[in-house]
Amino acid sequence: MIETPYLLFLGDAADPLAAKVAQGIKDWRPELCVGQLRLDGCQADMGLDDLTIEEAVAKGAKTMVIGVANRGGYISDIWKKALKKALEGGLDLASGLHNLLNDEQDLVDLASAKGRALHDVRIPSVEYPIATGVRRKGKRCLAVGTDCSVGKMYTALCMEKTMRARGMKATFRATGQTGILVTGDGVPLDAVIADFMAGAVEYLTPDNDDDHWDLIEGQGSLYHASYSGVTMALVHGGQPDALILSHEPTRAHMRGLPDYQQPSLEELRDTALILARVVNPDVKVVGIAINTQHLSDAEATALCKETEERMGLPTVDPYRHGADRLVDALETI
Amino acid sequence: MIETPYLLFLGDAADPLAAKVAQGIKDWRPELCVGQLRLDGCQADMGLDDLTIEEAVAKGAKTMVIGVANRGGYISDIWKKALKKALEGGLDLASGLHNLLNDEQDLVDLASAKGRALHDVRIPSVEYPIATGVRRKGKRCLAVGTDCSVGKMYTALCMEKTMRARGMKATFRATGQTGILVTGDGVPLDAVIADFMAGAVEYLTPDNDDDHWDLIEGQGSLYHASYSGVTMALVHGGQPDALILSHEPTRAHMRGLPDYQQPSLEELRDTALILARVVNPDVKVVGIAINTQHLSDAEATALCKETEERMGLPTVDPYRHGADRLVDALETI
Repeated sequence: MIETPYLLFLGDAADPLAAKVAQGIKDWRPELCVGQLRLDGCQADMGLDDLTIEEAVAKGAKTMVIGVANRGGYISDIWKKALKKALEGGLDLASGLHNLLNDEQDLVDLASAKGRALHDVRIPSVEYPIATGVRRKGKRCLAVGTDCSVGKMYTALCMEKTMRARGMKATFRATGQTGILVTGDGVPLDAVIADFMAGAVEYLTPDNDDDHWDLIEGQGSLYHASYSGVTMALVHGGQPDALILSHEPTRAHMRGLPDYQQPSLEELRDTALILARVVNPDVKVVGIAINTQHLSDAEATALCKETEERMGLPTVDPYRHGADRLVDALETI
Repeated sequence: MIETPYLLFLGDAADPLAAKVAQGIKDWRPELCVGQLRLDGCQADMGLDDLTIEEAVAKGAKTMVIGVANRGGYISDIWKKALKKALEGGLDLASGLHNLLNDEQDLVDLASAKGRALHDVRIPSVEYPIATGVRRKGKRCLAVGTDCSVGKMYTALCMEKTMRARGMKATFRATGQTGILVTGDGVPLDAVIADFMAGAVEYLTPDNDDDHWDLIEGQGSLYHASYSGVTMALVHGGQPDALILSHEPTRAHMRGLPDYQQPSLEELRDTALILARVVNPDVKVVGIAINTQHLSDAEATALCKETEERMGLPTVDPYRHGADRLVDALETI
């Protein structure tokens, strides 16, 4: 178990999106965050107190969580210095980076000398099976996106919160490092060996009560050239009964791929249904979640209304407007 | 990169089928095989000269390839003795066995002492990048199947052979263990970490001459619930200009999935095109390869003719009928 509360390490984040791990923890577990630590040039801000290691420890922090991620994951020399200070100051470290803390010998040695722990939540802790495709009991909902990082995890967490408030049986199933750091459990899907991806998703979403919903955290996009294979494994391993389409309307291009445009919601709907029907012929697209963080209230409302009329599906920003209408749609299944 | 030429190790193969890896190398790269090494009781024969280690080295052999499946899932003492002799005699070792050579401490120590390499092609030897989706020069062809194990590798190898005979620039790109041992290079895609699958395929099929074709070995199926994510990474990492549909017409159900039926060739064509167009809008389905090994000559001919008329695409069993008509289709692109 990772000890709490946390100091959130934002490093030298190139933009706010690079710190989405920190943002997720701050949004969903604010009570666990005593402050943030930022390096020169950091372009992210959680709105928490900027603390030194000493100040964080004085406020009770037990673990510094690396809340910033780079493409591929990479522990730079600048970060290394800050991580060592945290260990020396008495904090554990937790990370979801591809490059493991436990592969950095100087950190391992220092942690050992100081009696501190290094948590790499990205390492799969289980030998996952090959997927069987056998139909499971209970119901599953998966958000699929027009792009990476469009709010799929937030949508699932918002829906779980709303469903639990209604007394429904619902479990958020984390498939990424942020989700795992937020909930303390899950499958780090992008670090799983290719042959076992779909099996890992089956393992994560087992047989359950007939009226129980798994809210599976989506990853990547069927239209993202770098990560589509991971998304495919979620669609086939997750056996969703319900799909939510997730979209961020202000992207100039696909994340990290300057030559690529997002698909339309119509294209995403049609493609996702073709693929999801392979494992569940009854799957339905039940709603649309639009990430309106870069829009005004009026723009957000107008876009959702226009999209809803065009697509014939309940359309909300679940983080801004609440997830009630998406959950209403689930209740009809 | 595995050094060639090879001495093929057939061990104490219980029957010819146990030596199918050796058979593949001998069938597709006879020029790389200086001879074979058989132990007492071996029931397989590639029709190559039976050589001692010394004779093989004298003939220029650089690597002894384990071309036979091990009985009981472990490396026996009888094999171990022969493998050590090869290392002592100056040969590297290459293996696609589940049991890794590099997990046998005595082999590791001996190889190290003798300056020899142990190649386990089941595990990646490269840190692959994240896919960029950037368009590459040269042309690429990928076989996509209605199921796993329907003849995608043989189709690609047949096409490469035909293309080279015509003086075309063509390279088979291996993505599985047998293919890697056949060619001495490749990516063991099903063992790659999820996030790097598409990047591994980009790495495998880099920029090339405008008139050069990569024949990429397919894996899995977009319709196979266990492995579809791997196939998706091939479609998006491979950026194919040409797709071949591969089919085995006698399957009662999807391989390993009793509850699942193969899709129709029409479904596979439409789905593969939707997904492949994400990275290459000009991609075309150019032909169909039917694995007719369980059909008579008359049945095979009739099925290909009927399929060709229905689908409007050249349809052959490339192993039985030759790959000329598929290559003709590539030449029109």
